[in-house]
Amino acid sequence: MAENIYNQLCEHMKEIMLLGNTMGILGWDMRTYMPSEGTMQRAQQLALLSGITHDRLVSEKTANLLKKSGALDLTSLQKRNLELWQRDYEQETKLSVDLVKKLTMQRSITEKLWEKAKAKSDFKMVQAELEKLVELVKEQATALNPDKSMYDVLLDLYEKNITEAMISTYFSELKKGVMNLLEKTRNIELNPDILKIHVSVAKQKDLSKFIIKFLNMPTERSRLDETVHPFTTGYADDIRITTNYLEKEPMASFYSVFHEAGHGLYGLNLPKEHRWTAVGQSTSMGIHESQSRFVENIIGKNPVFLEYAIPKIKEIAPEFKKIGTEDFINAVNAITPSKIRIYADEVTYNLHVILRFEIERELFAGKISVGELPQIWNNKIEEYLGIEIKDDAEGVLQDVHWYGGLFGYFPDYALGNIYNGQMLYAMEKKIPDWNDQLSIGNAKNILNWLDIQVHKRGFLYDPADLVKEITGELPDAKYFVKYMNEKFGKIYKL
Amino acid sequence: MAENIYNQLCEHMKEIMLLGNTMGILGWDMRTYMPSEGTMQRAQQLALLSGITHDRLVSEKTANLLKKSGALDLTSLQKRNLELWQRDYEQETKLSVDLVKKLTMQRSITEKLWEKAKAKSDFKMVQAELEKLVELVKEQATALNPDKSMYDVLLDLYEKNITEAMISTYFSELKKGVMNLLEKTRNIELNPDILKIHVSVAKQKDLSKFIIKFLNMPTERSRLDETVHPFTTGYADDIRITTNYLEKEPMASFYSVFHEAGHGLYGLNLPKEHRWTAVGQSTSMGIHESQSRFVENIIGKNPVFLEYAIPKIKEIAPEFKKIGTEDFINAVNAITPSKIRIYADEVTYNLHVILRFEIERELFAGKISVGELPQIWNNKIEEYLGIEIKDDAEGVLQDVHWYGGLFGYFPDYALGNIYNGQMLYAMEKKIPDWNDQLSIGNAKNILNWLDIQVHKRGFLYDPADLVKEITGELPDAKYFVKYMNEKFGKIYKL
Repeated sequence: MAENIYNQLCEHMKEIMLLGNTMGILGWDMRTYMPSEGTMQRAQQLALLSGITHDRLVSEKTANLLKKSGALDLTSLQKRNLELWQRDYEQETKLSVDLVKKLTMQRSITEKLWEKAKAKSDFKMVQAELEKLVELVKEQATALNPDKSMYDVLLDLYEKNITEAMISTYFSELKKGVMNLLEKTRNIELNPDILKIHVSVAKQKDLSKFIIKFLNMPTERSRLDETVHPFTTGYADDIRITTNYLEKEPMASFYSVFHEAGHGLYGLNLPKEHRWTAVGQSTSMGIHESQSRFVENIIGKNPVFLEYAIPKIKEIAPEFKKIGTEDFINAVNAITPSKIRIYADEVTYNLHVILRFEIERELFAGKISVGELPQIWNNKIEEYLGIEIKDDAEGVLQDVHWYGGLFGYFPDYALGNIYNGQMLYAMEKKIPDWNDQLSIGNAKNILNWLDIQVHKRGFLYDPADLVKEITGELPDAKYFVKYMNEKFGKIYKL
Repeated sequence: MAENIYNQLCEHMKEIMLLGNTMGILGWDMRTYMPSEGTMQRAQQLALLSGITHDRLVSEKTANLLKKSGALDLTSLQKRNLELWQRDYEQETKLSVDLVKKLTMQRSITEKLWEKAKAKSDFKMVQAELEKLVELVKEQATALNPDKSMYDVLLDLYEKNITEAMISTYFSELKKGVMNLLEKTRNIELNPDILKIHVSVAKQKDLSKFIIKFLNMPTERSRLDETVHPFTTGYADDIRITTNYLEKEPMASFYSVFHEAGHGLYGLNLPKEHRWTAVGQSTSMGIHESQSRFVENIIGKNPVFLEYAIPKIKEIAPEFKKIGTEDFINAVNAITPSKIRIYADEVTYNLHVILRFEIERELFAGKISVGELPQIWNNKIEEYLGIEIKDDAEGVLQDVHWYGGLFGYFPDYALGNIYNGQMLYAMEKKIPDWNDQLSIGNAKNILNWLDIQVHKRGFLYDPADLVKEITGELPDAKYFVKYMNEKFGKIYKL
């Protein structure tokens, strides 16, 4: 009887997840194969399905099943599911239908206007709508939890139980480490542009196949397609990664495939026995990013891996033959401050994220206004990277996130680095010769370690607890700083 | 207020259609790109969505809106929508949940077993399950309308208001025409196999592009992909056709693209002002087939079109260069009795359908039993085509339809021919020089005529009424017989 109620809850929540999974596939289709004119009807389909999903999640049925299950004598695993579902239910019910509608509307208005503002490089065009959106996001945060700071509420949406105070500590160490390294390498020129050569899309596709095979991704459960902005979606036995082939920048797709494959492996390896329950999900956006960046940077941009891979890359795309191995490795790993986050190298990338965090924090504390964003942005880029921003398109307008109402989301990109640096040193204790293995093209043990330590744990732990479970310590940026210093110290011969 | 209720009904039915459209896309994905292991979760998604769709269609809300709208003073167009929606509602409500479940289960059991039985060419393996399925389909027919013959009820599901008696009349004339033509051409050898040459998939894809361009299909609203069994799906601004490339049979994909494009054009041209209402749908499966076969056979296999197209085909695929124009045309149009329906030529194809109709009719009249199907099948093939069937796989087991519970569906394939023959002569009155136009590669006026006469009428009329509206007469097989005699009389120099 007790089991029965809990099983009913599982069945009910599974259906909600199946609907979410369906929307994921429809979103994938929209960004890969859908004919361009299909946009309007796809938006209507997605709106209908999210309405149905919302109705099911906030239904009396959910409330009853959660309440009755709460009175049962459950295992700790069942309790974890219940806790996570309760959280989903509360997040969905605490927002009034009116607020959700206003937010949805304002998000799409602001995002549409952002496109135009970015095209004209004029922040002022979108400022008034962004102000309205920020006010609504503040309302949202207050509705979700009036007892916590608004920014903490937002952070918690994407990274459970990670607070502004924690991130401030991590980022302060990270920033120091990055600035130090930047200082030391500033006058050493490594040229990343030698890899910007023409390679046909067909050959780039073969390079992608090489990566997929190297990472041993099961093609009967996953696929790779083309899109404009690469992403990963899917669940269980149907995981889909995407990339974008630029004929004059072959390494862009090469590393985007590595990155998305890192996300993909996480999805593929989630615990089968907990499928379609809360525990059978990934932990958080930050942990997800730790996996994609581990695979992309710690594995894919590792000089020892590249020494192994470069001859194979040259075999597939002979255009690379004129580039020497060391030049190739240096070009992949060149630290070159850029205005745009998504084009940033492994090191300066963190500063792009930190500046967004610093701005968001002040914005939601009411210390700065929306109108001040462009100037503060430009000042910080100048201060951190020594680059002068001349127009908003390459400054505050570069990323869509804020204009889509995503605040508290950016920190997760750098948290991913902090987590994976720490994981790396835990792994090194178990696999001391991981670099030797990688140098002969063997990533099996490394990937298996990530699988067991991270993927197979699903959402059993909150992100900080998961890091502690794996490494014995709560998150600490010193490991990622150590990793950067070791790696780039060698490359830059410091 | 009155308008208001009717608009609510429209909005409600639009959501149901959007769900159906979503399932169409998920089905397309399943048959084109989905990783193979995704089958189980896709089945669960589709079952969930069809459950939601069913619940909405049979809901109190539907009943109320239909009832209240029925009391309104509606336009004839609104009345037509109401009538069609009422029919959908009744079909869905008259079947008990228990029966629907049993049917769904029995369908999938029988279909799965059919695969094995076909592989082993042993009808007896699937006989017992097929018997159960036939009983359930009979129950279904009785539940839908106990006052009509079971077979008429089934026919009506796919071809509204077309009865067994009507089809018997049409098919009797059609059969006579086909048998006559077959008699006259029996001893004249035309060799279809000269076109079975190796052409790479890449070149076959270019041939597909040639067809898409020739038919002027808008790529911003449609697409072409690969699958195992070609089909067409989608609605409004997102229509998807599929084909299958066989390296040693290049003309198979060539004509499957023509065929599916015929379905696709119908979908693309449906009346925009009636979108997401019942009237904004296609008329029936038979009318749909009339459009695909018109485009495939009357246009695509027309000798004058081929005279225009063959040089272009040879340019794209030089492998064809060694085949002379007349041999090419004759090979495309060779009448060669075959055991398998889907490989049949334009003429004998009809006999494959007629024999299935004759068998279904007797089966649902209780005049023959499931166990007798193989023998009756083989006797009829021998009688009509002079071919001896040696095993069930190339006889009664060749098509999946019956084993998936589709009875009353086969006749529509030949009804499509009967309709399009009749449409052709109506068109000829308006475009007397259509053959001349086609001979210079101009199908614009022909396709425009189909658009205006058929596509743009959506589901304003039942199929027989639509044929009358277009041609001035109710369906009559004599036109298709005339078309066959004229076309093949020339090719076979009779």
